[in-house]
Amino acid sequence: MAITHDKSKKSFTLLILLALTLQTMAQEKQKFLSAKESEPSNFGWMEGFPPPAAKVLHSGDGSFFKFPAIRYSVVHMREFLPTIRVSKGLKAPSVMTYELDGKIDELTFTPWNTTKKMTWEESLAQNYTDGMIILHKGKVIYERYFGALTETEVHAVMSLTKSLNGTLASILVAEGTLDETKLVPFYVPELKNSAYADATVRDVMDMTTALNYSEDYANPNADVWQFSNAGNPLPKPKDYKGPEGYYEYLETVKKQGVHGEIFGYKTVNADALGWIIARASGKSVNELLSERIWSKIGMEQDAYYQVDSKGIAFTGGGFNAGLRDLARFGELLRKQGNWNGEQLFPAKAVQDIARGGSVAAFEKSEHPGLKGWSYRNMWWITENKDGAYAARGVHGQTIYIDPFAEMVLVRLSSHPVAGNAANDATSLPAYQAVADYLINKK
Amino acid sequence: MAITHDKSKKSFTLLILLALTLQTMAQEKQKFLSAKESEPSNFGWMEGFPPPAAKVLHSGDGSFFKFPAIRYSVVHMREFLPTIRVSKGLKAPSVMTYELDGKIDELTFTPWNTTKKMTWEESLAQNYTDGMIILHKGKVIYERYFGALTETEVHAVMSLTKSLNGTLASILVAEGTLDETKLVPFYVPELKNSAYADATVRDVMDMTTALNYSEDYANPNADVWQFSNAGNPLPKPKDYKGPEGYYEYLETVKKQGVHGEIFGYKTVNADALGWIIARASGKSVNELLSERIWSKIGMEQDAYYQVDSKGIAFTGGGFNAGLRDLARFGELLRKQGNWNGEQLFPAKAVQDIARGGSVAAFEKSEHPGLKGWSYRNMWWITENKDGAYAARGVHGQTIYIDPFAEMVLVRLSSHPVAGNAANDATSLPAYQAVADYLINKK
Repeated sequence: MAITHDKSKKSFTLLILLALTLQTMAQEKQKFLSAKESEPSNFGWMEGFPPPAAKVLHSGDGSFFKFPAIRYSVVHMREFLPTIRVSKGLKAPSVMTYELDGKIDELTFTPWNTTKKMTWEESLAQNYTDGMIILHKGKVIYERYFGALTETEVHAVMSLTKSLNGTLASILVAEGTLDETKLVPFYVPELKNSAYADATVRDVMDMTTALNYSEDYANPNADVWQFSNAGNPLPKPKDYKGPEGYYEYLETVKKQGVHGEIFGYKTVNADALGWIIARASGKSVNELLSERIWSKIGMEQDAYYQVDSKGIAFTGGGFNAGLRDLARFGELLRKQGNWNGEQLFPAKAVQDIARGGSVAAFEKSEHPGLKGWSYRNMWWITENKDGAYAARGVHGQTIYIDPFAEMVLVRLSSHPVAGNAANDATSLPAYQAVADYLINKK
Repeated sequence: MAITHDKSKKSFTLLILLALTLQTMAQEKQKFLSAKESEPSNFGWMEGFPPPAAKVLHSGDGSFFKFPAIRYSVVHMREFLPTIRVSKGLKAPSVMTYELDGKIDELTFTPWNTTKKMTWEESLAQNYTDGMIILHKGKVIYERYFGALTETEVHAVMSLTKSLNGTLASILVAEGTLDETKLVPFYVPELKNSAYADATVRDVMDMTTALNYSEDYANPNADVWQFSNAGNPLPKPKDYKGPEGYYEYLETVKKQGVHGEIFGYKTVNADALGWIIARASGKSVNELLSERIWSKIGMEQDAYYQVDSKGIAFTGGGFNAGLRDLARFGELLRKQGNWNGEQLFPAKAVQDIARGGSVAAFEKSEHPGLKGWSYRNMWWITENKDGAYAARGVHGQTIYIDPFAEMVLVRLSSHPVAGNAANDATSLPAYQAVADYLINKK
């Protein structure tokens, strides 16, 4: 292509380019409705008797999970899919003490890669927050609900689910029921011809398995979609020849590389760990979670998992629970398994999470925003000065435990972008701002 | 056909007939496994990680509801189907006082059409009881669990669901929110071209609508199956041209006969009433039930409804709840809406149920076992000396309220035969035996 030397033409071209750039930037900004604009009540999803056709959402066609409908659906998963309960038991809820701190909303922080400060309160809408609770020394200092969430509803927690798995596995290891040094087929012989044949339980817990498996949600041919299809509890199309259920899919996963070297965040590992947990304990993950935790600390609401067509809980991402109950769970971890003086499981189960995993293995993975972090027992370890660690799920879910600040924070949300890279810049520094505030307040 | 006069041949023929008769009688007896033989734990339905193929049950192919699998599934409906919660709220459960009476198991009664006495305890297994609770003056005097049911599980209550509808409607009428004299299209204009066009709300509440609609479950071409197909939340086959959802089906129901004359027990009436309730109150039935009852009397467990593909609760038969919570609901009715001194709704809402409906209209229907009964506000009225009335669901579900005996009894069960005619003979006289015992105990 000939370069135009005509000056006026060149200026014009530059002007066009500038205009296009500005337009793209504007579109980028406007690509999604804001939190306020996308409030479920603005759309009336599933409202009416019956709801009008345009307001009906389905799981079968995926419409229930597209933005902005997802803002409704995160609080209504059981209405679209079969689910299995995690019983809280029949006891009264444990009392939460409130010492609400009005100053938190005004706290400011600098989002990553920017210079302009943002207030805590601004960050809530910025991240499409549905629920936010902060405990300090076990007391509720902050609690807010938005979107479709209320204190009597549960919310999908996506991959935060994995950390419940990791916690159960860590408990079983600490109690000697599960041997992390064993190869996976010791517990699950069905996986002897898969990538897991020569992976240790520890590799699975830390996601350092080497798998030929892509979890790029943006790629419609990624393996994660086949995994998702296998786990879909709806009847399969007649010509479907693939695996049925999450576990049958796991048997097909092939190895690529060497286990134990690189952190590779892949949901299949969480379901493999679920399978291992079930075999080691003799209980399904949903039963075990109820028995060991959900029925033990005065939860207010039953929780639940999505299930596949065999009734197997989707332990890679199908958990749903209430905001305050997730805070209770976080607090149980912060107290290293001690709940009001009763030690529910060995403290070392939590210590083994909090001490973190291999920073080197993590560095080799693609998490540019999370520099210096590690991953251990299906928890994300910040490796920061406070020893903070987090459970994380797409669209902005988190349990963030900061031991030094004696803080437990839970955020449930429905951010239009799945990947947390889209909200970390306005979340993680905000959490640290609260932590620092609490530390200084001491 | 020539009659054989040869005596020996005749005797032989008779012998063959006798043998065949005995064989048939034996088969009849053996047709179903006993309660003990059909215990879900004997079969291991859905047990294992994953369960073996032969133990996997599905809703799509109906396998989950065939006897003996139904004995498992009645306690696990949400694991097969999308459901919507009826929240109990976040309060602690109300305390139930126990004064267990060991003599009840030994009480005897004479089953209908027999002379041989049966003990109360024998009747439990006879009727494939999963749960039985009896309150006397509000105190628990008897409580047992069998099969798949435990005190921390909920159970499908089938058509007992209708009586919850009827109770809500009765409350709305008593409060003036719903006018029972209005024609159905006043509340639901969509039904103006259906059989409901000139039916009153009262006709619907008492099922005296005249519908061209068959509910013979034994007939695969019965209308009830089309209704069921319409309400199935799973994606429809590509060539499906019928109505989508319960409500769309209701618009297609045609009239046959004259409204108001004959009691005709048809599930569509209960869903029509659900629709009317929703329109009159501005709330879905599940919301309204939570708001008015489930969150008000210290329930122990959330309940739930199955839903159709539009999220509409199946108020004709899709409710699931815990045994003790159903007893609390029964006790609330026995106390005419008064719960620990607080009047939750006008007493006349219950009085209007208990006073019964038209015995003449009931007599014209086909319920030979229930002579002299009536049907009012979707409750079955015994019209007996005690003024007892009941909620009833197929496979043996009941809430049985005997005001004179100050007794509330709830049975949840999984009888192999759907129709309650199969268990009434060993149930209703058994309930009366307990009532009489309690009356005499006074």
